[in-house]
Amino acid sequence: MKAFSRIVLMATSLLFISACGEKSETSQAQVKQQKFKWKLVTSWPKNFPGLGIAPEKFAQHVNKMSNGRLTIEVFGAGQLVPGFEVFDSVAEGTAEMGHSGAYYWKGKIPAASFFAAVPFGMNAVETNAWLHYGGGLELWQQLYKPFGIIPVAGGNSGAQFAGWFNKEINSVEDLQGLKMRIGGIGGEVMSRAGALPVNMPGGEIFPSLQSGALDASEWVGPYNDLAFGFYKAAKYYYSTAWQEPTATLEFLINEKAFNGLPSDLQEIVLVAARAVNDDMLSEYTARNSAALKTLVEEHGVEVKTFPPQVIEVLKNTTKVVIEEMAANDEQVNEVWTSYKRFYDSIKSYHEISEQAYLQNRQ
Amino acid sequence: MKAFSRIVLMATSLLFISACGEKSETSQAQVKQQKFKWKLVTSWPKNFPGLGIAPEKFAQHVNKMSNGRLTIEVFGAGQLVPGFEVFDSVAEGTAEMGHSGAYYWKGKIPAASFFAAVPFGMNAVETNAWLHYGGGLELWQQLYKPFGIIPVAGGNSGAQFAGWFNKEINSVEDLQGLKMRIGGIGGEVMSRAGALPVNMPGGEIFPSLQSGALDASEWVGPYNDLAFGFYKAAKYYYSTAWQEPTATLEFLINEKAFNGLPSDLQEIVLVAARAVNDDMLSEYTARNSAALKTLVEEHGVEVKTFPPQVIEVLKNTTKVVIEEMAANDEQVNEVWTSYKRFYDSIKSYHEISEQAYLQNRQ
Repeated sequence: MKAFSRIVLMATSLLFISACGEKSETSQAQVKQQKFKWKLVTSWPKNFPGLGIAPEKFAQHVNKMSNGRLTIEVFGAGQLVPGFEVFDSVAEGTAEMGHSGAYYWKGKIPAASFFAAVPFGMNAVETNAWLHYGGGLELWQQLYKPFGIIPVAGGNSGAQFAGWFNKEINSVEDLQGLKMRIGGIGGEVMSRAGALPVNMPGGEIFPSLQSGALDASEWVGPYNDLAFGFYKAAKYYYSTAWQEPTATLEFLINEKAFNGLPSDLQEIVLVAARAVNDDMLSEYTARNSAALKTLVEEHGVEVKTFPPQVIEVLKNTTKVVIEEMAANDEQVNEVWTSYKRFYDSIKSYHEISEQAYLQNRQ
Repeated sequence: MKAFSRIVLMATSLLFISACGEKSETSQAQVKQQKFKWKLVTSWPKNFPGLGIAPEKFAQHVNKMSNGRLTIEVFGAGQLVPGFEVFDSVAEGTAEMGHSGAYYWKGKIPAASFFAAVPFGMNAVETNAWLHYGGGLELWQQLYKPFGIIPVAGGNSGAQFAGWFNKEINSVEDLQGLKMRIGGIGGEVMSRAGALPVNMPGGEIFPSLQSGALDASEWVGPYNDLAFGFYKAAKYYYSTAWQEPTATLEFLINEKAFNGLPSDLQEIVLVAARAVNDDMLSEYTARNSAALKTLVEEHGVEVKTFPPQVIEVLKNTTKVVIEEMAANDEQVNEVWTSYKRFYDSIKSYHEISEQAYLQNRQ
């Protein structure tokens, strides 16, 4: 049995190698004639820590691996198209690729939010497992297929902070009428809880907080929030993660452009994206803890947490909102069914493994 | 300022693109003459779930991205060299690459263990952050440099289970004289706590448990432990993660072989490794929870946890062992100083972010 499977494997490898060999001849010929220059548009300021660095690294990897046969120019939000037009721009082919967050397209595709962040949902490691070993990515790709876009995972922020507030949140009453920048499903939850959520690109938050147009805003966490200088515009910093247990970012690829690449360049694009998916979470993890120290020690920021009553209300409201979304939209229902099944299983597994460990090591 | 930095960036990108362009001409010429065939030896059974699949995926990515210019043949433990001779084999150039765990080389390089697993240390996400954004990888590469080997991260198992025991562990007394397969720093800790640790490759554990040569063994977690059928050879399964909050796997690259590659193939090797680093943790996360269900529901396995007294003793002993190791070995001291500084900072950050979130979502 063992010897037999070894032979089958060897035969398979040989087939694989010889198939590659044949393809090699053809593609090398094509390749010499054809160089590809792609544009990649993003929803972030050019070179913004974490979010903006990821697509730059992606482009560098692709350029190097392809030996300049596929060069990718990265544009910050507003340089080629506004931050919230990334999806349309990739769909139309104005840009061959984009880097963004799926919840920005919830007006067009309500189910998209589930591929970016689910309040009280899976963290970065769990979401990656669902996407790559739980059927999540296939559902995501089905969802964008009618728009001619192939989405792949494009990094994780890790658990995000609840955000910056100009007043203390001691009870649910303090949320009433609160003008807060918060998008995705979390925005809908905040709305049901009495706040007035607003969606705006990151670059516009600071002046809105400063002018009083916003009372509060979530963005990402210490690393990014320090970069935007929010501590100069808001008084309290709430660490409570609830709305985005991670943000999963996305690379958007125009399907026609992808299909026009030889298969080695296709693989280069997909593998570079996966490497960047790995890298971003490491960057956030390392930089967040350093940035929080700076915020507290150098800028005197007061870090607070929501009281349990507020967390309970947000958690229960999330359940109601998601169930309504699933009842009203077949795609949401399909995605949520897959998400929830995976989540239920991994949540109880992590309770006795990762979570128990974090408690034991204290 | 903004316009200025945009110009600098554009200039840099142009330089980058034209540099690539030049290099392109030269390398394409080389490339047509030169194809590379590498061997990759591993410490795992061929195609073993998780551990063995990672190097296969790596080889597939490299083969595809390089269009067959670099083909990599993967060998299971014992097929070309025994599982514990991977390091020497890559150092000597018998194989150009290896896939293994750094703690297997602790006899040769005591500091190597810190790049595989530290009892009560950092989890997968934190270790990745230290390696890639906290100076860890540079220290690791310095450590292997005298052997002509370049190590890079090669995947994570996530929090491992304490393992399989043929008697219950109700107190530290139950560890006395216990013949247990456990390697790395955890093995030394177990020895101080009174057990008799043994190091052996995964493939030898099952018969040793069955014959009574071993009273206990840790291996990885449900996904891998189910594959080896340990439930048929031991009575109790302890979920308590302590000895390996994650195992970080490693790709070993023979430095001379790496330097002999054109720069596009070098980048392909490094980026493929990074993509596999991302993939393995997802595979374990998804498969562990499914496998635990099978173990409990189909095979009647009883999952238990160490009592707090045992955890405390193991934790305190770990501290003593590591401090002794650092006092006796300059390299351990340097690596531990870097590890500990990063760990202290990320641990308190994760207490208010990731860990607080896991509690809030329950």
